[in-house]
Amino acid sequence: MVKIVVLGGGNLAFHLTNKFLKNDAIKVVQVYNRSIEKIEYLRTKTSITNSISELKDADIYIISVSDAIISDLSKKIKFKDKLVVHTSGAVDLNELKSESRKGVFYPLQTFSKNKEVDFSTIPICIEAESQNDLVLLETLAQNISKKCYPINSVQRKSLHVSAVFVNNFVNHLYTIGNEICEAHQLPFDMLIPIIKETSKKIEGLSPLESQTGPAKRLDTKTIEDHLTILNENQQEIYTLLTNSIIKTYEEKL
Amino acid sequence: MVKIVVLGGGNLAFHLTNKFLKNDAIKVVQVYNRSIEKIEYLRTKTSITNSISELKDADIYIISVSDAIISDLSKKIKFKDKLVVHTSGAVDLNELKSESRKGVFYPLQTFSKNKEVDFSTIPICIEAESQNDLVLLETLAQNISKKCYPINSVQRKSLHVSAVFVNNFVNHLYTIGNEICEAHQLPFDMLIPIIKETSKKIEGLSPLESQTGPAKRLDTKTIEDHLTILNENQQEIYTLLTNSIIKTYEEKL
Repeated sequence: MVKIVVLGGGNLAFHLTNKFLKNDAIKVVQVYNRSIEKIEYLRTKTSITNSISELKDADIYIISVSDAIISDLSKKIKFKDKLVVHTSGAVDLNELKSESRKGVFYPLQTFSKNKEVDFSTIPICIEAESQNDLVLLETLAQNISKKCYPINSVQRKSLHVSAVFVNNFVNHLYTIGNEICEAHQLPFDMLIPIIKETSKKIEGLSPLESQTGPAKRLDTKTIEDHLTILNENQQEIYTLLTNSIIKTYEEKL
Repeated sequence: MVKIVVLGGGNLAFHLTNKFLKNDAIKVVQVYNRSIEKIEYLRTKTSITNSISELKDADIYIISVSDAIISDLSKKIKFKDKLVVHTSGAVDLNELKSESRKGVFYPLQTFSKNKEVDFSTIPICIEAESQNDLVLLETLAQNISKKCYPINSVQRKSLHVSAVFVNNFVNHLYTIGNEICEAHQLPFDMLIPIIKETSKKIEGLSPLESQTGPAKRLDTKTIEDHLTILNENQQEIYTLLTNSIIKTYEEKL
């Protein structure tokens, strides 16, 4: 059985902790968070603390906090021969400053507190300094997911920026779609089927093959028409993405 | 039974024709296309023609061709008391120039020839000049879908531009995600779970509530880091969308 301590109380720490707690092969020895209120709900399930000097003994310490404080928090973990990992897509392995062994355990997914996720399909990206630790992280990953990828810090950062495009920015385009609908008394729900189909389509076709629309067709009349009903911010985004689509298909010709 | 003639051989005409052919309440009397080769596969299922003067008698003529040629093609339909509709999101009802009655039958979805779609969930947006014709189009719509919305030409155009954001532009962001993955020897498949979750999330939460990521958190260090690994075109899009997210949440505060 792998003994772990989770450090953090944010969205990812919340979902990870709950997932680990349900798994018989993993023992959540303790959860640490600076503010004890945020992890109070765990009191009946495991040991909780807001004091870093009271960390219990475990095999793996999982730091799941904001990127900016990972390094500082890792320094405070005073054990010498433990595995200390963070869960961030954007932070280098070497930003961990504990004297213990270092690793990364990065689940590539978007997490919101009030939205359940199915861990079994989430790619877990792992990194470690030694083969032994990589195996240890792989075992941990395989307990909660069917997909585990050993990748290095540079690859992880690229993956993270890709995820910003396909998640953060995509969600922002949904927000703009919603704004336009609201401005014309149309229910946003009308867009749900096309949103779902857009994400489903690329399981069978590449995104290049899936592209449709006025930009790909070089339909300048529709493009000009569309611009007239958008506000300034929407126009800027529309124009830049339209030009980028046009360039993409010019290059492929 | 509603008798229809479909005019067109593109992606939407292809999917609509095939769907209508399977429906017992609809009789596809004929399919017209300028190039007969494109509709040759229908020869065993219905009458096909490439001669507009040979159009058969029907209740509804469905023009499903490129926006730019809808108007011209409609002029050539010489019947006087039929219902002539187009299937475009971007074209005004009044661009139909036939002397017959006018209408619109716009399925809000993305269509690619080699990708099956489930019509039952597709919102069909209808418009007509008379209540009787609206009822006729509603009947036609309800035969293939559970969702039918009567909306006017201005609303339809807004919906169409929303769809450009949530489909065309979203798909282009997938293309960029793919480019970044390829540049770092990462399989694009790793992004599929987060892509699917992103589109699923907004069924329960609003897009505003679903937003996560460095822009929303004002995490300038990660934003600057990300920019260093992008090419010029990707940087421009990253910066514009990041600033738009920041502005959106500033306004909501």
